[in-house]
Amino acid sequence: MDNIEHTKNYRFAGYDTVELAKKYGTPLYVLSEEIIRSRCKELKSDFLDKYENAKAAYASKAFLTMAMCKIIESEGLGLDVVSGGELYTAIKAGFPMDKVMLHGNNKSYEELEMAISNDVGRIVVDNTEELYIIEEIAERQDKSVKVLIRIAPGVGGNTHKYITTGQKDSKFGVPLAKDTIDEAVAKAMKSKHIELLGMHFHIGSNLFENDSYIAAIDIVINLYKRLKDDFGFIAKEINTGGGFGIYYTKDDCVKPLSYYTDSIMKAIEDKCKELGVDIPAVIIEPGRWIVGEAGITLYSIGSVKEIPGIRTYASVDGGLPDNPRPALYSARYDAVVANKYDQKPDRQVTIAGKCCESGDILIWDLKVPEIKRGDILAVFSTGAYNYSMASNYNRIPRPAVLLLTKDGEKVIVERETYEDLLSRERVPF
Amino acid sequence: MDNIEHTKNYRFAGYDTVELAKKYGTPLYVLSEEIIRSRCKELKSDFLDKYENAKAAYASKAFLTMAMCKIIESEGLGLDVVSGGELYTAIKAGFPMDKVMLHGNNKSYEELEMAISNDVGRIVVDNTEELYIIEEIAERQDKSVKVLIRIAPGVGGNTHKYITTGQKDSKFGVPLAKDTIDEAVAKAMKSKHIELLGMHFHIGSNLFENDSYIAAIDIVINLYKRLKDDFGFIAKEINTGGGFGIYYTKDDCVKPLSYYTDSIMKAIEDKCKELGVDIPAVIIEPGRWIVGEAGITLYSIGSVKEIPGIRTYASVDGGLPDNPRPALYSARYDAVVANKYDQKPDRQVTIAGKCCESGDILIWDLKVPEIKRGDILAVFSTGAYNYSMASNYNRIPRPAVLLLTKDGEKVIVERETYEDLLSRERVPF
Repeated sequence: MDNIEHTKNYRFAGYDTVELAKKYGTPLYVLSEEIIRSRCKELKSDFLDKYENAKAAYASKAFLTMAMCKIIESEGLGLDVVSGGELYTAIKAGFPMDKVMLHGNNKSYEELEMAISNDVGRIVVDNTEELYIIEEIAERQDKSVKVLIRIAPGVGGNTHKYITTGQKDSKFGVPLAKDTIDEAVAKAMKSKHIELLGMHFHIGSNLFENDSYIAAIDIVINLYKRLKDDFGFIAKEINTGGGFGIYYTKDDCVKPLSYYTDSIMKAIEDKCKELGVDIPAVIIEPGRWIVGEAGITLYSIGSVKEIPGIRTYASVDGGLPDNPRPALYSARYDAVVANKYDQKPDRQVTIAGKCCESGDILIWDLKVPEIKRGDILAVFSTGAYNYSMASNYNRIPRPAVLLLTKDGEKVIVERETYEDLLSRERVPF
Repeated sequence: MDNIEHTKNYRFAGYDTVELAKKYGTPLYVLSEEIIRSRCKELKSDFLDKYENAKAAYASKAFLTMAMCKIIESEGLGLDVVSGGELYTAIKAGFPMDKVMLHGNNKSYEELEMAISNDVGRIVVDNTEELYIIEEIAERQDKSVKVLIRIAPGVGGNTHKYITTGQKDSKFGVPLAKDTIDEAVAKAMKSKHIELLGMHFHIGSNLFENDSYIAAIDIVINLYKRLKDDFGFIAKEINTGGGFGIYYTKDDCVKPLSYYTDSIMKAIEDKCKELGVDIPAVIIEPGRWIVGEAGITLYSIGSVKEIPGIRTYASVDGGLPDNPRPALYSARYDAVVANKYDQKPDRQVTIAGKCCESGDILIWDLKVPEIKRGDILAVFSTGAYNYSMASNYNRIPRPAVLLLTKDGEKVIVERETYEDLLSRERVPF
């Protein structure tokens, strides 16, 4: 983390994290606007401005609030949403709808209706049946809908199996069988209300190699060639999804964005030239890559328990409810004791959450200085898939989200209260 | 499931589930008051009324709302809470505080203060440091606090590692090292504001064998004997936790409650007699066992996708956000197509959730009749750890909770709206 300064308290994006914890309480999600924007700038300089046929949409499932929509809009990126709730957030934030792309393996009729009546830019169709529903809605609303078809290229990403999505046996996308693909393409091409622009794939999440993208591109461009020959279909776009790996711990071999995008662009260009296919516009969908390292979570240390000869557990005031990734994916995180940032980490503790559940362990075997009740722990790289996956398990209220800006820190999501937890309850007796 | 009747539509606790789905929408959590109460009655007849030294508290982390508190109160059971949020719910429901037991490996100062000022019946102390905090608060409030000390007996339950809590290397409880235990007991006994009643342990969750309970009891009664000899401490209680297994699929060898409780009571009596220790009151804490099988979840089927030669996926309109257990624990569920309950399940599908995440698979290889868009799926045994663990991942609103009573069905938690998802957001620019 190159933004670390060697002072007594750990500073994040220029802010003293111990002061933030005092002022706003813990647990606290902290996001740096500057880091989010610096990622967007890297995306522009190394991809969008470098290639004339390049586009990008932020995969909002990683982290979405109305304030985040505003940042993404001002950076000129598109927005990838996967549900009515994400679409609703974008609408309420006034996000330009022509830059919104709707995904999902099981979009409801209502979600498709909402997307079409709001003129979303693209619908990424997951199966042929969905094309019939889109056509029916579009016909009734007298609209034309731009679609991509998601395919399952049969390529697996080298990552945790839960977040590997491109393999053949997948709930996502149209299987690559000729009959199935042809049925979908023919249906889309025949429809007066559907404009088929090309194919989408998503290999997996948090990938550190580019080979699976290239393998999938090879399959898609071959498909474009065949569809050109068989149907006269000219693909205008290819969407290669997201999945670019970020830094969680020192074991992660992080690559710059260009490592992925340059090879993606080259593979597409080479293959298209080889097969005599028009080079399509290329859309990528980074989510975690934009927001993951822009976030940290601040916790207070509570009980510290030494089990002689075995392990020392230090418990924080959050855990599984605000960050289920360690329990879900055996995800690993790094952290520092924020108020002892000048002290040598000369011992090892395991950071436990406060949930009544053995699986609620945030970090195994973290190097720390002496640690005790009241210390502040800053866990890195929690910007993605923490707030968005948070629950109220054990009736623990969800933390506030604080955005660090050039003009001071701003609460963009208020801390949940106990009263909030009961707000939808009714007692019928 | 002996409440299944062979009609066209699947009926649950006397209600036509297809009609409920139509009336209240899907996904929908459905809870049967009758089944909850029948479990409470079994608990009374086979444990509480059978043994004069028997007590029980409902482990509310499994499922807690104010309405649930009312049912548990009317059945005369105690309530086990693990956080300020659960305690707050009990307070707001007017639950008798002397029957509340507060657990947790990392109770905050505020949570302990809230518990003591509301005169909760027991605090289950997780470590010695907590005793100092309790004493300080109790002294300031001039209260006397009844406590049990949670110990880690070094016995593992035969279950998924995340929900195995009794082993030595655990974030929970005082390790069994003599010095550590003695320090805690001496501290508690010396305090004018603390009344130490005995020990608590919790072996694990969803256990189908009683041997680990018996092994832990042996350890605790040996400890009682030693503490009697060394400190003159007479334990009045022993809390053996919960963890009694329930029916999820036909592979679960479910045992009646008495299988666990009779052997627990016998082991305690035998061991106490053997060692000349007074037989303590015995507290058990069933959560899942009371509410798990009392709940089902109704979903609508959306896209159905056949991957030739590999697998057919049928997607529902919920998934990981309303039931994270398959992704978290590889938990298995059974289900029926509710509107085709009279049809032979002659094929196999995999039930996928609607989340943009490969890990969002609810049930692998479920036997079903022909299944298509609009069918209603009823997933069994979702009463515990579904609503309580639910998230808004992908900004999917949480389902309503419907309670089936003798006087008709009652909404006890309203369905979340898109607007609810934005209610705590602020846009600072």
